[in-house]
Amino acid sequence: MKRIADEELVREERAEESTQKWLQDAKFQEILGADSSHKSLFVLLSHPDGSQGILLANKSPFSEEKSDIEKLLATAQLQEISRNDIFGSYNIEIDPKLNLLKSQLIYPINDRLIAKYRQEEKFVIRETPELYETVTRPYIEKYQLNLNWVYNCLEKRSEVDKIVFEDPDNENGFVLLQDIKWDGKTLENLYVLAICHRHGLKSVRDLTGDDLEMLYNMRDKSLEAINQKYGLKTDQIKCYFHYQPSFYHLHVHFINLKYDAPASTTMSAILLDDVINNLELNPEHYKKSTLTFTRKNGDKLMEMFREALKN
Amino acid sequence: MKRIADEELVREERAEESTQKWLQDAKFQEILGADSSHKSLFVLLSHPDGSQGILLANKSPFSEEKSDIEKLLATAQLQEISRNDIFGSYNIEIDPKLNLLKSQLIYPINDRLIAKYRQEEKFVIRETPELYETVTRPYIEKYQLNLNWVYNCLEKRSEVDKIVFEDPDNENGFVLLQDIKWDGKTLENLYVLAICHRHGLKSVRDLTGDDLEMLYNMRDKSLEAINQKYGLKTDQIKCYFHYQPSFYHLHVHFINLKYDAPASTTMSAILLDDVINNLELNPEHYKKSTLTFTRKNGDKLMEMFREALKN
Repeated sequence: MKRIADEELVREERAEESTQKWLQDAKFQEILGADSSHKSLFVLLSHPDGSQGILLANKSPFSEEKSDIEKLLATAQLQEISRNDIFGSYNIEIDPKLNLLKSQLIYPINDRLIAKYRQEEKFVIRETPELYETVTRPYIEKYQLNLNWVYNCLEKRSEVDKIVFEDPDNENGFVLLQDIKWDGKTLENLYVLAICHRHGLKSVRDLTGDDLEMLYNMRDKSLEAINQKYGLKTDQIKCYFHYQPSFYHLHVHFINLKYDAPASTTMSAILLDDVINNLELNPEHYKKSTLTFTRKNGDKLMEMFREALKN
Repeated sequence: MKRIADEELVREERAEESTQKWLQDAKFQEILGADSSHKSLFVLLSHPDGSQGILLANKSPFSEEKSDIEKLLATAQLQEISRNDIFGSYNIEIDPKLNLLKSQLIYPINDRLIAKYRQEEKFVIRETPELYETVTRPYIEKYQLNLNWVYNCLEKRSEVDKIVFEDPDNENGFVLLQDIKWDGKTLENLYVLAICHRHGLKSVRDLTGDDLEMLYNMRDKSLEAINQKYGLKTDQIKCYFHYQPSFYHLHVHFINLKYDAPASTTMSAILLDDVINNLELNPEHYKKSTLTFTRKNGDKLMEMFREALKN
């Protein structure tokens, strides 16, 4: 037993060493993406043996542990950039152990994976009701992902342990469950999804005044369940739809207001409160509106819009 | 001359040394704010001499220079966290010179400055038309900042060098100028403001169907001017209002879609295209709507809403 464990350990160490060696022999080929705001860098690498790999590097968040901050202060080496009265700007060099990169290294890789990680430029699309009918609806019908995983959740054939709350009503009910992006524990990143029981509502485009009862129900009961279970109050949660959504069965995102979630910006997200307000003012609001969102170059829907707008 | 330059240099070096010494003697007192998404940390420090200071530390974006990336790859020390097939997760230790913190150190400081840098929790406010009249309007009338700097821009008594375009029409005209947050050069962060010539429009709340001509004019001519001057096309720009705005004279933000600008999220920003769409559907939309936004604890408007909702 001991012997096997040792061999296992040796094999693991060798794997780590060989990855280290692969990386050191690899040459920089191309920047696939960079985000100066979130401090990340995606790099394509090529190895003399002919293989390729991708390094996804992220600066790590600062530790908020007292002892780590004290170590940081003690080892900080200042390089002054400018100073004015009580304000000074500095580059600071700190102990590299306090400043690790959180990274993924993927190798060997193929062209499909390279395309997946290549950062493509986004463009604005203004979708009139007519363009929804002639471009987006055919896109959804042709390319939308299979919704079996959603039905499995709703019928509790899977992800039962993720369920936070359920209202089983056929007309206005829904299942509230932890999103896969959330660990279910860290309150700062709380992320739950309310998925309606009713089938056939694809997105906000399909909503009319007739759906207001369901929307009130989803909002009020979800916020109450989140308060009961996690202690966050109504005014500490943001709730919104994505447009376009990633899957076409109506669902609402409920997220800790503190969490800077991906795709929570204008042109990606529409507040549940705004949808309710707009349908109260005009039951046909989403049948008559131009909706504005962004898509990446190379995306199928983007291509279909470009084709349609060319004519 | 040489002598004076030397003395200057010595004095500067001493100032840098004394700051270094101040920081090393200072003790960690409190985390004022932390942002794990943008990787920043604001720390309050107390010094044995009785003074206090604030360190604003930010992880730096990755350099996109080929030579820096090559150095990073050459010095990277991998620590494996997990591995599955071609995918591996690692902590990476790199040369600290490639991984500086961009920082400000402010000392000595007073309580007012500490309050300014303390990260206060945000809360959601749902402003009905009635609450706008009874809470927000009185707040604006009592506390809004003096708008002289805006009038100085509009009448070209200041910031003339920042003007990108002007339509001088009294009714529908506007001035388009570089925002102070933009250096006027880096296209990735392009940020310009369109400020309407007409006085008295405080925010989207004041807009009705009668203002559509002005909004079309501001949108179309601003996008055209940005295209002419900076080469960015209509579908590479996001344009929005802030609600609440930071000053109450109507203005629209035009920003490179690539730039993750502060306050571009839902509950802070309302797309110009959405405002136009909503006013086309209902000329009284913003007179009748509940608008949802966030404010920080300790903020005056927040206090006034809390007071009003208590009754």
